[in-house]
Amino acid sequence: MSEHVKGQGTGFRPHVKTLKSLQAALYYAPPDMPITVSTLVEAQYFANAGYRDILYAVTLTPNKLAMVESLLDQGVQLTVLIDSADACQMLEFQWQSSFSLPVAIEVDVDDHRAGLKSESNTLVDVAQRLANAERLEFAGVVAHAGASYGCFTESARIAMAQQEVARVQQAVSRIAEAGLACAMVSIGSTPTALANVSRDGITELRAGVYATFDCVMAGLGVCRFDDIAMSVLTTVIGTQPEKGQILIDAGWMALSRDKGTASHDLDCGYGLVCDEHGNILEGWRVSQTNQEHGIITHMDDPDASIDAFSYGQRLRILPVHACATAAQFSSYYVITGSAVSETWTRINGW
Amino acid sequence: MSEHVKGQGTGFRPHVKTLKSLQAALYYAPPDMPITVSTLVEAQYFANAGYRDILYAVTLTPNKLAMVESLLDQGVQLTVLIDSADACQMLEFQWQSSFSLPVAIEVDVDDHRAGLKSESNTLVDVAQRLANAERLEFAGVVAHAGASYGCFTESARIAMAQQEVARVQQAVSRIAEAGLACAMVSIGSTPTALANVSRDGITELRAGVYATFDCVMAGLGVCRFDDIAMSVLTTVIGTQPEKGQILIDAGWMALSRDKGTASHDLDCGYGLVCDEHGNILEGWRVSQTNQEHGIITHMDDPDASIDAFSYGQRLRILPVHACATAAQFSSYYVITGSAVSETWTRINGW
Repeated sequence: MSEHVKGQGTGFRPHVKTLKSLQAALYYAPPDMPITVSTLVEAQYFANAGYRDILYAVTLTPNKLAMVESLLDQGVQLTVLIDSADACQMLEFQWQSSFSLPVAIEVDVDDHRAGLKSESNTLVDVAQRLANAERLEFAGVVAHAGASYGCFTESARIAMAQQEVARVQQAVSRIAEAGLACAMVSIGSTPTALANVSRDGITELRAGVYATFDCVMAGLGVCRFDDIAMSVLTTVIGTQPEKGQILIDAGWMALSRDKGTASHDLDCGYGLVCDEHGNILEGWRVSQTNQEHGIITHMDDPDASIDAFSYGQRLRILPVHACATAAQFSSYYVITGSAVSETWTRINGW
Repeated sequence: MSEHVKGQGTGFRPHVKTLKSLQAALYYAPPDMPITVSTLVEAQYFANAGYRDILYAVTLTPNKLAMVESLLDQGVQLTVLIDSADACQMLEFQWQSSFSLPVAIEVDVDDHRAGLKSESNTLVDVAQRLANAERLEFAGVVAHAGASYGCFTESARIAMAQQEVARVQQAVSRIAEAGLACAMVSIGSTPTALANVSRDGITELRAGVYATFDCVMAGLGVCRFDDIAMSVLTTVIGTQPEKGQILIDAGWMALSRDKGTASHDLDCGYGLVCDEHGNILEGWRVSQTNQEHGIITHMDDPDASIDAFSYGQRLRILPVHACATAAQFSSYYVITGSAVSETWTRINGW
């Protein structure tokens, strides 16, 4: 990803929300890099380790101002996000700190979730109000083409990446017409960031789940299933031969309830099944989960023999959605060859 | 639940997996009660607080023997579960401890998940082998009618509760014919435990999610939505009026990805929406979630006005599946009146 982004001619601000681990981040987002976080607890955790350029990529609310101020007080260049006149007004009235707060505006480039439309008048109004406010600083624009998770071909991904660029460019132009410059023009999602498109005026790309990839990304064609670098180690606790079921001690507590590939050609259920060494056992998926029970079945053939599975056997499950599966754990074991070479801790919570 | 179980004439062994909290358990499963756990880490956590009669309700695997022995060594009466001749053989060969290990057999009463059928020969064989093994103790039978989560009427729940009892009675009879007594005859799920049926020969009922209930239970008719005693406090981070959407800072990281009511008459999405005081805002649900974003929409009327919602407003989300939502947190705030009266910590992990 780093190489690719370099080729795109932009800066790079990895999203650390997938692994939420300092030791992991050393491999893809060391402390001298700008990072993106999904919670302020994450910001504090990375700030404690020396990270100084942090984008909090969820629209700010008033109850979080104290934590934001504390981070600025620690010397963190924390950029926050808003997407409404109401949020702007809140900051104008409630940001009483002596620190100047960098505020970016979220732009909606794909009708996916949050953000102001590039063509909206509110966008320009809010930029001007931020620029005029004494202790606020208009930082620029931020967009996330989450709709790229519905792009199943390379051409669809390229089109979405171009749309992400074009709509943000339009927002930047309209703000420029009002006499304001966007220091930060930040876009990205793993699928669109990996596309190879013209990035004029874009200052940085963001991406997160590429750190390990998952079945959703493989299903989109963004990576191969073999590229997935995360798995849940589990043990066969029993079988139900007449139903073609293998039971494992990884339920939704370990795998999460994410069924992100349910609409894909290959529905991976709650995860694809591998042997202990990580070799995919073609055709087998976790099709049901309870809290501590997972049920593996064959995805095409209900009469498939389960003789290859036996009580006590170790298996690995490839995560459907790495962010969601990783969130169920407090640490990771790093496997080099067949041995555990490192343990990485992670944080959760708010 | 305690009162009801007393009326059923059986013992009671609450499942503590929903809240996994010592402070919470004081209210419904104090240390002198037998409890059910879903992981051995949970067993250790409760053992540390003085709990002595613990059932680990997931089929045991060989890699967990050391932890089991350690718990017995601490004076815990830990009962473990198996449901196959293979698991029995494993214990016969690998249980080398000086402590006698109580082992119960899981009986499949509803084709739902794990367990041996009441009519299977393996059931009786395994009971005999456990009784004959020197350091193993045949403890009895355990069943869980998980299929009760598909019972939408009281009569269906009663029928399922009767089936749970009848199939376990059959297992006990067949084992008795082989000359063995079942000291433990343990059944239950919140829906079947709450049914009022004849419980001849049943020594104890188990139930877990009744501790707070959730939208799944309310959808089944096991409780009212007003009974749900858990919610996620969240803040409106923005609105998308033309799409009828309200965005909140509770995504799947806070709510979980559980969509357990998707097949119900009332699909609660990722949770029902309440005002800050817990009053249900009729018709509104969390219909989409990303990691830290939730999207609230009206469930019937896409053109419903969102004027009642505003940036910065606090809301509460009732969990679809309390076990899954609670698992995303490390503590709970207990609200008495409108103030926080206690903080309960919980554990996760394995």
